[in-house]
Amino acid sequence: MSTTNIDSAAQIFGVPFLSNAEGLINSVQTFLFDCDGVLWKGEKLIDGVPETLDMLRSRGKKVVFMTNNSTKSRKQYRKKFEALGLSVGEEEIFPSSFAAAVYLKSIDFPQEKKVYVIGGEGILQELELCGIEGIGGPEDGDKKIDFKPGFFIEHDKDVGAVVVGFDQFINYYKIQYATLCIRENPGCLFIATNCDAVGHFTDAQEWAGGGSMVGAIKGSTEKEPLVAGKPSLLMMDYISKKFQIKKSEICMVGDRLDTDILFGKNGGCKTLLVLSGVTTLSMLQSPENSILPDYYTDKLSDLLTDNSADV
Amino acid sequence: MSTTNIDSAAQIFGVPFLSNAEGLINSVQTFLFDCDGVLWKGEKLIDGVPETLDMLRSRGKKVVFMTNNSTKSRKQYRKKFEALGLSVGEEEIFPSSFAAAVYLKSIDFPQEKKVYVIGGEGILQELELCGIEGIGGPEDGDKKIDFKPGFFIEHDKDVGAVVVGFDQFINYYKIQYATLCIRENPGCLFIATNCDAVGHFTDAQEWAGGGSMVGAIKGSTEKEPLVAGKPSLLMMDYISKKFQIKKSEICMVGDRLDTDILFGKNGGCKTLLVLSGVTTLSMLQSPENSILPDYYTDKLSDLLTDNSADV
Repeated sequence: MSTTNIDSAAQIFGVPFLSNAEGLINSVQTFLFDCDGVLWKGEKLIDGVPETLDMLRSRGKKVVFMTNNSTKSRKQYRKKFEALGLSVGEEEIFPSSFAAAVYLKSIDFPQEKKVYVIGGEGILQELELCGIEGIGGPEDGDKKIDFKPGFFIEHDKDVGAVVVGFDQFINYYKIQYATLCIRENPGCLFIATNCDAVGHFTDAQEWAGGGSMVGAIKGSTEKEPLVAGKPSLLMMDYISKKFQIKKSEICMVGDRLDTDILFGKNGGCKTLLVLSGVTTLSMLQSPENSILPDYYTDKLSDLLTDNSADV
Repeated sequence: MSTTNIDSAAQIFGVPFLSNAEGLINSVQTFLFDCDGVLWKGEKLIDGVPETLDMLRSRGKKVVFMTNNSTKSRKQYRKKFEALGLSVGEEEIFPSSFAAAVYLKSIDFPQEKKVYVIGGEGILQELELCGIEGIGGPEDGDKKIDFKPGFFIEHDKDVGAVVVGFDQFINYYKIQYATLCIRENPGCLFIATNCDAVGHFTDAQEWAGGGSMVGAIKGSTEKEPLVAGKPSLLMMDYISKKFQIKKSEICMVGDRLDTDILFGKNGGCKTLLVLSGVTTLSMLQSPENSILPDYYTDKLSDLLTDNSADV
C-alpha cells in the first residue's frame, strides 16, 4: 500500500501514520480494543481482524475489548464475537452496560434501592449480576402517555439511580419516568453508559447513538450525567487493577477521537486511531480537532504489516 | 392575604413582592403573558385570570400572549383560549411554533427546500401559512427501525432545516431522520422552538418538556440549535415592530426564570414573576439563581388587588 500522500498530509499536523507496527507491538503488553468500527461494522467483520488478534495473542500480548455500546451484556457480547468467528472470553469483554453496573457496585449502591433503565436487556443483566434490581428497559417500550386532565405517571420512590444507554425504543414514557426519578427522588444518580453521538448499528449508515437518549434526559433534568463508558476512566482503572497491567504498557486502539483516543490519552496509554470507523482523515486533520493519537492507520490488520523496511 | 413572611424573605435577596400593582399597571402600556403556569395549568384555568385580563383591557392596556409550547398553531391556541372562557384574537397569540416559522420566513428560507419537523401539527400549520413545506411530524409517530444488516433510512436531501419542538410521540425514527438531515445535508439548520426542561401538560405533574427532544438531537449532532422561543428575543423584536410598542413599556409576566424572566430582562422590559407555575419562592431565592425579576407575586389576579394602601 502506498502511503506517500497520507504520510505527507500527516506530517503537516504531526500525527504519524503507523509505519513501524513492529515497534508499537514490542513497546506494549496489552492491546485494548474498541469494537464497533475497529473489529466490525454493524454485523460485518472488518477484513483481517481474526488474523491480527491471533498474531497478537501468539506473541504473548493480552487483548481486551471495550465497547461503549450498552445494548448487550458481556455474555451476549461473547455470543456476538463467536458468531463473527472470534474466540474471546467473557472476562476479556468490557461493555458500558457492565461499566455502569460495576460503578454502582463500587459505590455500595444501597441494596434496598432500584435502578431505572433506559436501554436494552444488557444493562438489566449486568445490574442483576451485581445484585442490583433494575426496572424499566425493554418492558417500557410500548407504554403511552395520554395528556387528559389529572393524568400523571406514578414513579417508584425507591429508584436511587437512572442508567441511560442507547435505546432504539426510546419513548416519552421512558423520558418522563427517568425525569421524575432524577428530579424528584432525593439523591437519585444520573448515569450515562456513554454519550456517543453516533454508532454503526448497521453497516449501511451512521445512526444516532446513546448521546441522543442521554441528551433527552439532560434536557429535561438540566443535570450532567456521570459517564461510565469511554472517555471516562472508570473502566481503565478497573481493568488495570483486575489484570495488574501498567497503563503505560497499554495501547488503546479505537475509531473515535472523543471517546477512544481521549480515553487512552487520559489514561496515559499509547493510542492508535484506525480509520475504519467514524473518523476520517480529514476529521483527524481538522483545525477544530484537538485530540491527537500517537499513531493512525487505515485498519486494524495494518498491525500485520511491518512497513518499517519500506520507509 | 398576609404577605409579611414573604416580604421579609424577599427583602433578603432584593426582589420585591408586588405590593403596588397600581403603580406597575400605570408604568406600562402592554402586558406580555406567558400562558402555561400563568393563565392555566394543563387544561385548568388559574383563578381570577379572566377578571384580570378584563381589567387590563378596560384600562386600555394591550395584552399579548406568548408561549413556548409549540404543539399548537395560533388558530389552535385561540380555540384553547375560547374553551377556557378567554376571548382572545389570533393576532394576539404568539406560540413558538409560529416563532420558528416566522424566523425561517425572515431569513428567506429557499422555496425549493423543506423543513423536517419533530413536534406536533401546530408547527406544520404555521410553516404552511408561511409558504414553507414541512415534512415529518405526527405522521412519523409510528415508524419503527429494524437493525438488520444493510438497513438504512433514506432521508430527503432537500431538507434545509430541522425544527424541533415538544413531541410526546418522539421515537428513534424521528431522532435518526433529524440527525441525518443535520449531519448530512450541507447547511441544514437546527432550530428549536424552545428548550424548556419541563411543562405542565396536565395539572397533576410536571412533564419533561421540549428540552428533551432538543437535547436528543443535540446529543446525536453535537450542534447547538437556534432557539425561536423564549428566552430568544426573536419574537420580542417581532411583536415590538408589529404593534409599534416600545420594549421599555412592556411588562413580561411569566412563571419561569430561565425563559420568561430572562426574556423580559434581555428585551429591556419590566418583569413580573408569578409563583403559580414551575418556579417556587425557594427557587427564586436560591443562591444558584442569578435571574431576578423586577417583582414577584403569587398569581396573576394579584394585579387586581392594590395592596399599596396596606403596606
